[in-house]
Amino acid sequence: MDHRVFNFAAGPSMLPLSVLERAGAEITNYRGSGMSVMEMSHRSKVFDTIFQETKAKFRAALCIPEEYEILFLQGGASTQFSAVPLNLMGEKGKADYAVTGNFSNVAFKEAAKYGSVRQAASSADRNHTYIPPQSALDLDPEAAYFYYCANNTIYGTEWQYIPETGNVPLICDMSSNILSRPVDVSRYGLILAGAQKNMAPAGLTVVILRKDLAGHHRPDTPLMLTYQTMIEKDSMYNTPPCWCIYILGLVLDWLAEQGGVAGMEAIKHQKAQMLYDVLDDSCLFRCPVEPGSRSDMNVVFRTESAELDDKFVKASVEAGFTNLKGHRSVGGMRASIYNAMPMEGVEKLCEFIRAFEKGV
Amino acid sequence: MDHRVFNFAAGPSMLPLSVLERAGAEITNYRGSGMSVMEMSHRSKVFDTIFQETKAKFRAALCIPEEYEILFLQGGASTQFSAVPLNLMGEKGKADYAVTGNFSNVAFKEAAKYGSVRQAASSADRNHTYIPPQSALDLDPEAAYFYYCANNTIYGTEWQYIPETGNVPLICDMSSNILSRPVDVSRYGLILAGAQKNMAPAGLTVVILRKDLAGHHRPDTPLMLTYQTMIEKDSMYNTPPCWCIYILGLVLDWLAEQGGVAGMEAIKHQKAQMLYDVLDDSCLFRCPVEPGSRSDMNVVFRTESAELDDKFVKASVEAGFTNLKGHRSVGGMRASIYNAMPMEGVEKLCEFIRAFEKGV
Repeated sequence: MDHRVFNFAAGPSMLPLSVLERAGAEITNYRGSGMSVMEMSHRSKVFDTIFQETKAKFRAALCIPEEYEILFLQGGASTQFSAVPLNLMGEKGKADYAVTGNFSNVAFKEAAKYGSVRQAASSADRNHTYIPPQSALDLDPEAAYFYYCANNTIYGTEWQYIPETGNVPLICDMSSNILSRPVDVSRYGLILAGAQKNMAPAGLTVVILRKDLAGHHRPDTPLMLTYQTMIEKDSMYNTPPCWCIYILGLVLDWLAEQGGVAGMEAIKHQKAQMLYDVLDDSCLFRCPVEPGSRSDMNVVFRTESAELDDKFVKASVEAGFTNLKGHRSVGGMRASIYNAMPMEGVEKLCEFIRAFEKGV
Repeated sequence: MDHRVFNFAAGPSMLPLSVLERAGAEITNYRGSGMSVMEMSHRSKVFDTIFQETKAKFRAALCIPEEYEILFLQGGASTQFSAVPLNLMGEKGKADYAVTGNFSNVAFKEAAKYGSVRQAASSADRNHTYIPPQSALDLDPEAAYFYYCANNTIYGTEWQYIPETGNVPLICDMSSNILSRPVDVSRYGLILAGAQKNMAPAGLTVVILRKDLAGHHRPDTPLMLTYQTMIEKDSMYNTPPCWCIYILGLVLDWLAEQGGVAGMEAIKHQKAQMLYDVLDDSCLFRCPVEPGSRSDMNVVFRTESAELDDKFVKASVEAGFTNLKGHRSVGGMRASIYNAMPMEGVEKLCEFIRAFEKGV
């Protein structure tokens, strides 16, 4: 397939080549059905099989207990920023948020439309370069839920522990690290994740929800944002994003070949550690994120000079790497190394970083 | 490509084979970019070009005036059933709906969450087998808007005129007939359409909105349902459904080859008329929809016996047609013949209907 690049974008980003090849091979005729998955009625038997198998594979991959429903929705995590408070704020009318970056901050602001919200933790004091420890969480035992974002793509931080919140349901945005490690789902009330980093093309949002939490939504909750309706209709109140669900199924097959989430955890940690080691050894580059809070998915780094950062980014593009420029709000560089980034891509990036430093 | 079937599903349904082949050919490496469209950062230049070109082609296809914005959203028409009242009900707090089938009825009920709604017209008295004429519209000149669904997939009816509503903005769900005929967009305040019939795979919703109508939403409108935000962010507040947008671009190229919407209008009318003629000539089959209200997209028909209907559906599957069974709420048969259904598919269906009648 000609020349494929190592794409370090924060998302959408790389998908496994074998998944793309499989999808391409059956794009006009899915396994003898005479049609593309893009053309199938979502109520047809052939698509229902894809849907149910994908759901079952997802449940198996994360060992999701039976009392949790898996929803395949649309609208991205940003739609869930509204759906969570609309559905879960309930009579308590208040919720706790940990603000450790851009997306948790947007979620916090959005929830304020629907109730009383409080920052139970924040890493703003040190420019979001760390994750607050359990001891720094100022928890309200009467909160309807505690919300946090497991991995912060812009700042390159990742929660390395599951917050202990007693009886307060734990809500987590895992958009950028889901399926990269095992997760004890039973610790959570709800997990949400946009698909476009580790799961599938943009357009699918997966929600894992403890069923007893649904059914207490505000009466003016929009139809399509109502979890209870989506549970009752098995995510098919209307037409779901069929193509993305199909690709997720193929990605889950590929994930199983990598040893599942346990296998992936070892691989992703090895990839990330390789990069952090190079950065920590460097006299030119540094990672601003505090050890113990560093993300295995998004490795941010920089030199001491914005000009030199620019020079690095330009040289990296010429060398066949793409999207290494950091987010506009923080500058510097960012290497997003999601599940589908091959080890080879990270090795080559490490070589490139070392060679660049020598050449300066 | 083996054997492709004629797929008469109500949506998702057929896409042009040339579109699928093109997408398949570039699925691992889009035009030298070294990546799939499914892997591209939505903020990258290569995707931005796809996005802007698709938008420009869509604007050209329907001659959309500059004072209208084109939004590429998620969540289907059902999400718009909430977004429309949340954004447009405004201080007037009341709206008129024409209920001519299932989807307009759902939209009507959903809007009641957000204001005072009234059925300005209904076809329920004759089981939705007709479209009310202009003279039957009981219009409130103080309504914030008048809402209708241009084509009713379940009942096989289609509005053959644009309602005249004076100064009241006209809102239309064109999910199942958009791009099948020219539309005078300037007559509308807002047009919404799920993509999965005439445009692209499920997961994309197109909204055409007169810009001055945005910005008057309720303060508790969910972030992602706020038109003003989507206008300001050019549909990219978060990651849009990139793959669907790309396929829409390919479909619009194909549409241009068919002579655009004017060319398509002639073709689709010819296809539908062929089927209606066969049904009207038949002693066994009949179309329950009143002449003048018949849809060119969804042709519903039946025999006098549910057993015979079942027999027909079973025989049709054996003959290589799929999804001819009518919606469970009305029974009988339904042939959805959207833009991508080839003339040959309709011709073969006509032959099959005639042969079935002879064999009974």
